[in-house]
Amino acid sequence: MTERLSITPTHAYRNNDKLIGIGNAFWDMSERSGLAGIVAAYGEGVLRTEAGHEYIAEGHEFVNFSCCSYLDLDSHPKVIEGGIEALRRYGVLDHCIARSRVQIPAMLELEASLGELFGAHVVCSIAASTATFGLLPLIASGHLGTGKRPLMIFDKNAHVSMANVKPVCADETEVVTSGHHDLNFIEDACKKYEQVAYVCDGSDSLGGYAPVKELAELQDRYGLIVYYDDSHSMSAYGERGVGYVRTHSPVLDERTIVVMTLNKAFGTSGAAIVLDGYDKETLRVIERFGGALNYSQLLNTPAVGAGLASAEIHRTGELVTLQNKLYENIQLFDSLIHTDQTGSTFPIRLVPMGDDTVIEAGRRVFEAGFYVSPVFFPIVARGTAGLRVMMRAGQSAEQVRALCAVLAEVGARPTAPIPGEAAR
Amino acid sequence: MTERLSITPTHAYRNNDKLIGIGNAFWDMSERSGLAGIVAAYGEGVLRTEAGHEYIAEGHEFVNFSCCSYLDLDSHPKVIEGGIEALRRYGVLDHCIARSRVQIPAMLELEASLGELFGAHVVCSIAASTATFGLLPLIASGHLGTGKRPLMIFDKNAHVSMANVKPVCADETEVVTSGHHDLNFIEDACKKYEQVAYVCDGSDSLGGYAPVKELAELQDRYGLIVYYDDSHSMSAYGERGVGYVRTHSPVLDERTIVVMTLNKAFGTSGAAIVLDGYDKETLRVIERFGGALNYSQLLNTPAVGAGLASAEIHRTGELVTLQNKLYENIQLFDSLIHTDQTGSTFPIRLVPMGDDTVIEAGRRVFEAGFYVSPVFFPIVARGTAGLRVMMRAGQSAEQVRALCAVLAEVGARPTAPIPGEAAR
Repeated sequence: MTERLSITPTHAYRNNDKLIGIGNAFWDMSERSGLAGIVAAYGEGVLRTEAGHEYIAEGHEFVNFSCCSYLDLDSHPKVIEGGIEALRRYGVLDHCIARSRVQIPAMLELEASLGELFGAHVVCSIAASTATFGLLPLIASGHLGTGKRPLMIFDKNAHVSMANVKPVCADETEVVTSGHHDLNFIEDACKKYEQVAYVCDGSDSLGGYAPVKELAELQDRYGLIVYYDDSHSMSAYGERGVGYVRTHSPVLDERTIVVMTLNKAFGTSGAAIVLDGYDKETLRVIERFGGALNYSQLLNTPAVGAGLASAEIHRTGELVTLQNKLYENIQLFDSLIHTDQTGSTFPIRLVPMGDDTVIEAGRRVFEAGFYVSPVFFPIVARGTAGLRVMMRAGQSAEQVRALCAVLAEVGARPTAPIPGEAAR
Repeated sequence: MTERLSITPTHAYRNNDKLIGIGNAFWDMSERSGLAGIVAAYGEGVLRTEAGHEYIAEGHEFVNFSCCSYLDLDSHPKVIEGGIEALRRYGVLDHCIARSRVQIPAMLELEASLGELFGAHVVCSIAASTATFGLLPLIASGHLGTGKRPLMIFDKNAHVSMANVKPVCADETEVVTSGHHDLNFIEDACKKYEQVAYVCDGSDSLGGYAPVKELAELQDRYGLIVYYDDSHSMSAYGERGVGYVRTHSPVLDERTIVVMTLNKAFGTSGAAIVLDGYDKETLRVIERFGGALNYSQLLNTPAVGAGLASAEIHRTGELVTLQNKLYENIQLFDSLIHTDQTGSTFPIRLVPMGDDTVIEAGRRVFEAGFYVSPVFFPIVARGTAGLRVMMRAGQSAEQVRALCAVLAEVGARPTAPIPGEAAR
């Protein structure tokens, strides 16, 4: 009998052996230390563990400093009631058929409301990753954008939900990976290719914003298309919470495509694709050929109703109040612990730790009553491990101070005291 | 100035130019005839159009014969109340953080309930397509399955949510496309490669089931892995609604992976991945590295609550009653209109029409008060256009008879009357 064939993979854009080989050991370590696989009941801003871990007893109470609901809108009574009301009103979670055929008006209602909020055309999706998997191949083939097949440049730090679509795009066009925000690389490509599209986060999950103004210059000069995932700044940033990109990009037309989750600061489920300047034909192409955007499962009615309620809050002074509470908490944190993000409005802080100390540090913080997530390769580059802290509007000053005290104990760098401060 | 580069795509696995070039014209035609882009209010099993079309007046009432909620569980009062109850109980739609870190018990509750229903391990996902995009690359790299990198065979009719992942899998292993249910092709591959995985629908969106018994023989003989999307038979088929594959496949272990939407006959939102025989380590790999399965957006709490209620109905005689009502409607349809699916339990019937007559036929059926969807390339192969009819438990015999009468008028083939029938 002849030997049966084994296969050598190309690994041009991804490599599960490497990803899982390295990442899984760290996850296992996290879980053994009680920092992963936590199941916890939620109530009044505090979680309580349901299962015992090696180090953490069942019933351990903690404040989640690693939840992306930056404005705590997820538990806002109006948002919850909005979800209930829509479920009752429509009488179904969903009416299972592709929306390009027949749809009930639920998701259209939310799209209209968000469209008004953004001053743009909004298409909703069940998740930002779903939107990305639907849209990037259309950009690759030139059907979304200028009609020309672009060289697609993925930022090396682009979230995995975007990076995962590289091989799909590579079957429709050429795909390359650039350094992080490498404007020279992008400009060189613009000089060489008749059309270029750049894919990156508008707001990074590890803190920091995209250089939207510099990119806009390239958009103006070369017709560069930019696809932003601005999930981490939706609601948390800008007037009526339109996010960082839509606040600062001078180019809001067909060349700028923004996708944002509704699941973080907005407080509900799903995602919004924010578009400007596209004609009806292109919008129909998105709806019909944007992958899961035309599958039979739409955003369910409670997510729609909750979204309508959250959008209403975005139109009131309450949003400003919540944003300001978030910023106060961020400033308080920055006044106590120094990070590379100090001074930014970004709700995420990465407190550097050694690859070999990060989990023990996280464990001690958790024991003290705060969950912060240890991040490590492959979430971040090797040698840049740390504890990721996410600030929320709903955290009390007392909680922030107590967290910072224990962070300092486990090796975080305290902010230099203001001269004379200690004497007061 | 030198000419800037344009790009020639590889188009090894997909081709938007072709897909959109051909498909979009048919969509446009459908929409002009009022058979696509319909917005309609829903109530008591009847829809009412909201926007006027060229041919159909605003306020036109119709019964949807193209909705996949085969048992009408989507509007079951217990399902709706289950959604509301869970939203109130948890007080959030979702607690935004990756589940491998911290999760509230919501989705675990549903997974436990569905696990009991299936007698298997269940992992939930926000959509079947999301599950597929998470799992297929893990199968490709050998991390899900037997540890060996398989040749991946995609059935040529595999739903687009699976076919779209081909280029991603092709970066982790070798990918080929087989003829529809081409068992010889699969067996030849099994003889040649040390590991093979076959990807197909358990229940086709155009009617028909996979040859699970014949595939099980190959699974036994060669260790073939089969990935089934059995979305169209979940709830509608089998004891407690476990679907076609889980009812008939003699191989229910690591070699058979089934994904099923919860959005069709089950009546809620999301999807279930049904697994047997995997150890805890592999389950952790799925949770951590299965793409969106570990992103911060889980199935929202109303979907969980509605799912718990639907699962409870699956444990009662009510499910059998609903399945029987569905089957009665299917039999009534078959007694009046002949299709290739006649005599099958499958809830979908494809009524053949000419490529040039299918839309006009659909328009006349819609005018008569019934929506059936015209299908055409690229949804089906060229030359096999037709009107897709979806049966539900909630359709009345009167509605089914009236639909069949108008289908016969527009060119469907009536079933030959039983001898002597006309005389009675």
